[in-house]
Amino acid sequence: MEEIYSYIKENSGRFVENLVELIKQPSVAATGEGIGECAEKVKELMEKVGLEAKIIPEKDGNPVVYGEVKSTRSDRTLLFYNHYDVQPPDPIEEWIHSPFSGKIEDSKIYGRGASDNKGNLVSRLMAVEAFLKVLGEPPANIKFVVEGEEEIGSPHLAQFIKEHSTLLSADACIWEFGGINRRGNPCLYLGLKGVLSVELQAEGAKRDVHSANAPLIPNPAWRLIWALNSIKNERDEILIEGFYERVEEPSAEEIKCLEEIPFEEEEEKRSLGLKEFLHNLTGLEALKALLFNPTCTINGFHSGYGGPGAKTVLPCKAFAKLDFRLVPKQMPDEIFEKLKLHLKNRGFSDIKIIKYGSTEPAKTPINHPFVHLVASAAEKVYGRKAVIYPTSAGSGPMHLFRNWLNMPVVSAGCSYPEAKAHAPNENLPIELYLKGIEFMATLIEEFGSS
Amino acid sequence: MEEIYSYIKENSGRFVENLVELIKQPSVAATGEGIGECAEKVKELMEKVGLEAKIIPEKDGNPVVYGEVKSTRSDRTLLFYNHYDVQPPDPIEEWIHSPFSGKIEDSKIYGRGASDNKGNLVSRLMAVEAFLKVLGEPPANIKFVVEGEEEIGSPHLAQFIKEHSTLLSADACIWEFGGINRRGNPCLYLGLKGVLSVELQAEGAKRDVHSANAPLIPNPAWRLIWALNSIKNERDEILIEGFYERVEEPSAEEIKCLEEIPFEEEEEKRSLGLKEFLHNLTGLEALKALLFNPTCTINGFHSGYGGPGAKTVLPCKAFAKLDFRLVPKQMPDEIFEKLKLHLKNRGFSDIKIIKYGSTEPAKTPINHPFVHLVASAAEKVYGRKAVIYPTSAGSGPMHLFRNWLNMPVVSAGCSYPEAKAHAPNENLPIELYLKGIEFMATLIEEFGSS
Repeated sequence: MEEIYSYIKENSGRFVENLVELIKQPSVAATGEGIGECAEKVKELMEKVGLEAKIIPEKDGNPVVYGEVKSTRSDRTLLFYNHYDVQPPDPIEEWIHSPFSGKIEDSKIYGRGASDNKGNLVSRLMAVEAFLKVLGEPPANIKFVVEGEEEIGSPHLAQFIKEHSTLLSADACIWEFGGINRRGNPCLYLGLKGVLSVELQAEGAKRDVHSANAPLIPNPAWRLIWALNSIKNERDEILIEGFYERVEEPSAEEIKCLEEIPFEEEEEKRSLGLKEFLHNLTGLEALKALLFNPTCTINGFHSGYGGPGAKTVLPCKAFAKLDFRLVPKQMPDEIFEKLKLHLKNRGFSDIKIIKYGSTEPAKTPINHPFVHLVASAAEKVYGRKAVIYPTSAGSGPMHLFRNWLNMPVVSAGCSYPEAKAHAPNENLPIELYLKGIEFMATLIEEFGSS
Repeated sequence: MEEIYSYIKENSGRFVENLVELIKQPSVAATGEGIGECAEKVKELMEKVGLEAKIIPEKDGNPVVYGEVKSTRSDRTLLFYNHYDVQPPDPIEEWIHSPFSGKIEDSKIYGRGASDNKGNLVSRLMAVEAFLKVLGEPPANIKFVVEGEEEIGSPHLAQFIKEHSTLLSADACIWEFGGINRRGNPCLYLGLKGVLSVELQAEGAKRDVHSANAPLIPNPAWRLIWALNSIKNERDEILIEGFYERVEEPSAEEIKCLEEIPFEEEEEKRSLGLKEFLHNLTGLEALKALLFNPTCTINGFHSGYGGPGAKTVLPCKAFAKLDFRLVPKQMPDEIFEKLKLHLKNRGFSDIKIIKYGSTEPAKTPINHPFVHLVASAAEKVYGRKAVIYPTSAGSGPMHLFRNWLNMPVVSAGCSYPEAKAHAPNENLPIELYLKGIEFMATLIEEFGSS
């Protein structure tokens, strides 16, 4: 591996350039800006590295870039999941450098996608390049699947996975994100929650009426309030029958992992202006709730007058947007059916339910050999113990790989807590980027010989 | 009275012109457009009629126009309450004639204020003119108080009444609105509900956060939903302790009145696209609820994302605007205190309450001699039985006259169900306007000799 590390050091300037070039190509999934051009640039970079690459068009969606390179040394295959699309750069006026400049200052690369997810993508490609240039081949078969719709909820990825399951078959998958925490420990994430997004709609009269008519005219805002109140009570208990029936308590091993996760709760509270977390949760209990509790969140509720002062109106419409975050074994389709049944049984058949999207939860067990392998590679490179998150609070299409393609999935990467993903001044320190390339190279090496 | 009726007939062209002139002067309280000019025009018209008139400026508010003329024949005084301000004319594109044109078509006068309230105001002034021109004086002392803020909730009228209680002293008051129903019966209204307008506000973190944080971060939309649910249940019962304690059932006499009110409920439901009224109320029960039930209405509720599709956000703010319609003896200040106490007792001390405005309920008893007098005058002029509404579903500052100045108040006027008050194409048929002048003249005559 010393030759590989040397190659990475010697080529670090070019590796940085490769990332800067990709950042300079906008690729905003929300608006479509630069999507096709960026997919092309990713394919070109893969080819420059030495992969066989192709752009696979998706019906009604953004193209997926696929790349692979075979190894004669191992019959094992490692799949990298990344995305080339980025969040919109707004608010643009808050950036110190133009969001698609790739400008370097204080040894940090600035730009939308620097960390999420172009930095991670290119670090992985550069690690593969090192093997190809030094050894002529990688120590294991390598596949890349790089989608262009992650930031808008991967609406076409499930269809893509169904159609290309053979192409994507692998023994393990490295997920798109990760990095070090404030103490410098590399963090690995073994799961994601599922999510179910819905809108509830209530209607009353054909038009808004004067509120003097309230004794006779149904008020959809009240209807929706009572319907929502029937879904979750003041103790945050979700009252849909059977909602919790598949929920499992964290295992003893998972609790042990939680105990080793540094959780900077005071800083978090201060930054959000909160005296306490919900239900005065603190320490391990707070972390456990964050990662293992399913939730039902009102994302928005709108009805009637919202301007200054008072208006004596009885509104004719009300709607609420909700998301349910789901933990392993809670399937969004099943929860959706339970929600419909709940509203019907509770007398809210007048409330219309729209389903916007859903993702299943996914989790790889802590004791899976691949988890140990990734942790060991991380500890070698970073010289610190890996912090293992048995799962995460967020959601994403991990279940397509974990459950549908049936492989262990670990999320690990080269980012850090100040990367400002999804915010102005997204950045990635060059040092962490290069460290990330070493990490991925070490991981590939250990995977090949495992 | 024959001479009076003849005078009205002979001068009908000029009476119509006087109303058209006043309609041509915009006077939109919501924007302030033309308010000062309109007050001036009302004063000029009063002087032309023969009243002593003055404009009384209100601190921070629109001026009030006051006019009076004394009688040597009677020591009794009749006070007319009107307003010269109008609703905004929007949506302007739906008017068949420009809203401040006063255009006459098919013997109807079109324009904002034609019915509400310039038609009523001028009809009363013209009735007084008839007496002054024919007899040299009215058969009773006459006072006019014409405010300029009725359409924005009369925010300064209470202060005005306090400061000018002697000036306004009278034996009885004719309120600003009224007219015939679809069957041609004149309708009298003996009361108005009170109203209390509030806003409830909830706050969570300092800024919106990703909904993945839902296990730890308080959601103000949920807090507000639970708080509102604690205020009113699905059976529309208001749960604030003591809310109903002063509410009285309608008397046998009031029920008898209700039985004589034609209530076109099928037409009302059809026009609003409703299969049923709330709680399947129908007939007398529906009318009783409309007039005698206090209510709590959500006028608006807003929190978080309201755009298309889904957004995984946990909002940091939520607010709801509510109005309570109150029936006699339910005092808004007391209800406000009870609401505050309710939220505190129910664990919602985190919810902030803002009071926007309030009006007390008011009602004149059916058996008051003044009610009989107005009904008798109406029946003489219209040739049909007067329909007496013991109270109305709406609200207004009637209590200032009924309770503070302690006089009987009856609302009666020259409008009709198709007048389109507050809507495009507001109008008043010339025939009804002239009939209204006769009605007011007859009423003044009977009042003077009572």
